[in-house]
Amino acid sequence: MIDLNADLGEGFGRWRLTDDEQLLSVVTSANVACGFHAGDPVTMRRVCAMAAEKGVTIGAQVSYRDLAGFGRRAMDVPPAELAAEVAYQIGALEVFARAAGARVAYVKPHGALYNRIVHDEEQARAVVDGVLLVGPALPVLGLPDSRFLELAGQAGLTGVPEAFADRAYTDQGTLVPRGEEGAVVHDPEAVVERSLALASSGHVVSRTGASVAVRARSLCLHGDTPGAVDLARRVRRRLEEAGVRVGAFA
Amino acid sequence: MIDLNADLGEGFGRWRLTDDEQLLSVVTSANVACGFHAGDPVTMRRVCAMAAEKGVTIGAQVSYRDLAGFGRRAMDVPPAELAAEVAYQIGALEVFARAAGARVAYVKPHGALYNRIVHDEEQARAVVDGVLLVGPALPVLGLPDSRFLELAGQAGLTGVPEAFADRAYTDQGTLVPRGEEGAVVHDPEAVVERSLALASSGHVVSRTGASVAVRARSLCLHGDTPGAVDLARRVRRRLEEAGVRVGAFA
Amino acid sequence: MIDLNADLGEGFGRWRLTDDEQLLSVVTSANVACGFHAGDPVTMRRVCAMAAEKGVTIGAQVSYRDLAGFGRRAMDVPPAELAAEVAYQIGALEVFARAAGARVAYVKPHGALYNRIVHDEEQARAVVDGVLLVGPALPVLGLPDSRFLELAGQAGLTGVPEAFADRAYTDQGTLVPRGEEGAVVHDPEAVVERSLALASSGHVVSRTGASVAVRARSLCLHGDTPGAVDLARRVRRRLEEAGVRVGAFA
Amino acid sequence: MIDLNADLGEGFGRWRLTDDEQLLSVVTSANVACGFHAGDPVTMRRVCAMAAEKGVTIGAQVSYRDLAGFGRRAMDVPPAELAAEVAYQIGALEVFARAAGARVAYVKPHGALYNRIVHDEEQARAVVDGVLLVGPALPVLGLPDSRFLELAGQAGLTGVPEAFADRAYTDQGTLVPRGEEGAVVHDPEAVVERSLALASSGHVVSRTGASVAVRARSLCLHGDTPGAVDLARRVRRRLEEAGVRVGAFA
Repeated sequence: MIDLNADLGEGFGRWRLTDDEQLLSVVTSANVACGFHAGDPVTMRRVCAMAAEKGVTIGAQVSYRDLAGFGRRAMDVPPAELAAEVAYQIGALEVFARAAGARVAYVKPHGALYNRIVHDEEQARAVVDGVLLVGPALPVLGLPDSRFLELAGQAGLTGVPEAFADRAYTDQGTLVPRGEEGAVVHDPEAVVERSLALASSGHVVSRTGASVAVRARSLCLHGDTPGAVDLARRVRRRLEEAGVRVGAFA
Repeated sequence: MIDLNADLGEGFGRWRLTDDEQLLSVVTSANVACGFHAGDPVTMRRVCAMAAEKGVTIGAQVSYRDLAGFGRRAMDVPPAELAAEVAYQIGALEVFARAAGARVAYVKPHGALYNRIVHDEEQARAVVDGVLLVGPALPVLGLPDSRFLELAGQAGLTGVPEAFADRAYTDQGTLVPRGEEGAVVHDPEAVVERSLALASSGHVVSRTGASVAVRARSLCLHGDTPGAVDLARRVRRRLEEAGVRVGAFA
Repeated sequence: MIDLNADLGEGFGRWRLTDDEQLLSVVTSANVACGFHAGDPVTMRRVCAMAAEKGVTIGAQVSYRDLAGFGRRAMDVPPAELAAEVAYQIGALEVFARAAGARVAYVKPHGALYNRIVHDEEQARAVVDGVLLVGPALPVLGLPDSRFLELAGQAGLTGVPEAFADRAYTDQGTLVPRGEEGAVVHDPEAVVERSLALASSGHVVSRTGASVAVRARSLCLHGDTPGAVDLARRVRRRLEEAGVRVGAFA
Repeated sequence: MIDLNADLGEGFGRWRLTDDEQLLSVVTSANVACGFHAGDPVTMRRVCAMAAEKGVTIGAQVSYRDLAGFGRRAMDVPPAELAAEVAYQIGALEVFARAAGARVAYVKPHGALYNRIVHDEEQARAVVDGVLLVGPALPVLGLPDSRFLELAGQAGLTGVPEAFADRAYTDQGTLVPRGEEGAVVHDPEAVVERSLALASSGHVVSRTGASVAVRARSLCLHGDTPGAVDLARRVRRRLEEAGVRVGAFA
């Protein structure tokens, strides 16, 4: 059983980015932007309503407060501020999830925050504290073996590991950093096959050609590039044809 | 029985405005700023924690999105956007109220929004819709005979009327507009006595000297001027000495 | 001689809206967003550099402070604040214009501000004051017979009237309000012909079929819809084929 | 000859922080907040007008875009974005300086940006690039021996070193980091005497008791604490009594 997640509702006011309606026909978990890097209240409401209608699980995609940088600027936010900012975003989204008859069922940090808490103990703990402010029952989605998932687990939260079929992996099963050659897999067919490998066997071919284990209960699909929706559809179809059950983790 | 409410948590980041701790020793209802005109997540969390500890009821002080103008710039926000923005703010505050073992127990619009929905049918309805998105059980605080309270009542929400002991009233029982001469009562002793009159008899002396009826279940105290906390304390003491019960409406 | 102006640089951070490069091959005046309704510093810099390279005149497209509403929410901004906000935006853009070897050569209010100062004396005067803070030599672009152009003229600024080939006009030569039936002309061929009529004869066919005079030194082209760039190109080609000289007013 | 600089105009909208009028009677250089960490257009205009009237030199206090964190959150801003953001802020302030008959005469980074470019080559270069976008003639104020001043000098800008009389110094003449014990000198008399030592001899007593050389053409006074203005006055009086000439560097 594998979950498919994607970032949704990443417009702001006049601006749109993701094809929310189409993506909601493919994914099983929607990471809904909560207003700090993207996502205005009207969009949050609309995406929650569509997700609930289609039976897609709603998650809070929390971020640094950084509209100008789309949450991609790592920030030294003091832990108490970061924790409160995370909780604020989850709470705001919860209203729209409930209004649609659903609930915020998990939390996924976005962008620079996502990357930073792979290693940054202090900020990872702050995000966990922010989630705990909301309640003890919210799973968090992140990179396997990250400090974030580790601290979340210690705090009693369910840490859900995810993988990226369009990213290259090292022999250690970690992501090849963006910026290094070959970090991103551009060939759609390769992405589809890597998705199947990750979902069915928990393995992926590393950049050296080795088969490496990658723990993943969810695959992250991207929705903000041309062809993204088509590729997402192909991934899902391939998984289902191969007998992999596609379903939300939360 | 009368409620005393005041605006709290109206700082932002480095900036403070209200003496939240002292005011929470006086009022029975705290209108907590939710981040749109003032109020950052850390402050929201701290004020909710203090309010819960002191047994003060927590309300969401919702506003136009206008940090630069402190929510005092009336804005033509389309109804669907305004409703969603109101709900967003309430949801964000709810997290901190719950974390403190309490709940958001009512909603009070702030500043230009408060004034506009006295008469503006469309925006009044949008604010009611925003509150209803959160749930059917939240009372709203506003001006008696305003369109806002009227529409709230029609929608099944409890509309709670409030009065201002430091504002002059017309013979019709409406506020003398700011900007007109004598609109604000500056003499502390007069404010104290008007508070007692409003709370005990539901009447106040108008600017022409007539005694006019003003429906009020709550008195709004101001917390952002020098001497505000002292005055608030004197009002409460006077009410209690006169045998008026002071207690939250929600 | 007619000027063609369009709004440019109306993205923000991760979000794009207008095809700036293509539009700069068509228009003679670029209304560059300055950060209050859209427009981040990197985009402002890039658009100024491209405009200067192509010989397109740079104007400051000033707005209410309203990223969430794209400057389309009319706001009651006190005059002193509005004037200073207008000046702030012009100054910020001036840096990038100069860095590109050009200058901010005019000012055009955006969206709700544009519409409001057609009639609102106080805000119209505030915008004029804001422009005067920068200097006495900046022309302003607006609606003919608006309070804004009138007050600008009285203050010694050059007021430049513009027309809209894709908007219906009343028999009085004013715009049919958006929202009324037929307010927007959707047929590209009609837009092209109306452009030519406005530019060559200063007349346009009103919604009742009458020929009405519309003073215009500039035509406003839209750049944020599909097909916008193509339509802009057709308008320019038609004008030039008909012998109308296309050139900036500033 | 020594300059005295202080941060001014660090309010935002409804919020005030610094006693701008009083400080302008003491300092010779005003670091005016430009809207990214603090500083709204009305305040910028007012501070520039007062500074010009009192003959105080105006500088642009540029910052990360971070109102919520008051510019104290270090951010990984890509260099091209940081450079453009710096230029944007300077340009916005320039309008108000000119309207007051003055000019922006120097640039001083604020808060986390100030600290980061002591060591961060990439961001230091980006700030220099941002200043150069505005023009080649603007001096920059910073820490002696910082990468920022070094790169500024290499780029042809005048780098002006400053010292802090209320901060402890190491034996190497660098600041004891905040957070370490004794990092801040709280005794007003000690601050006054250290100011004199720094200004007259270019030396200060380190935390180990050694006399260490500190290059400084300006002393930074703080204006956001109780008693700050009084202390600033005492520093200036002491310097003048000792025959040190107090005057702007720019």
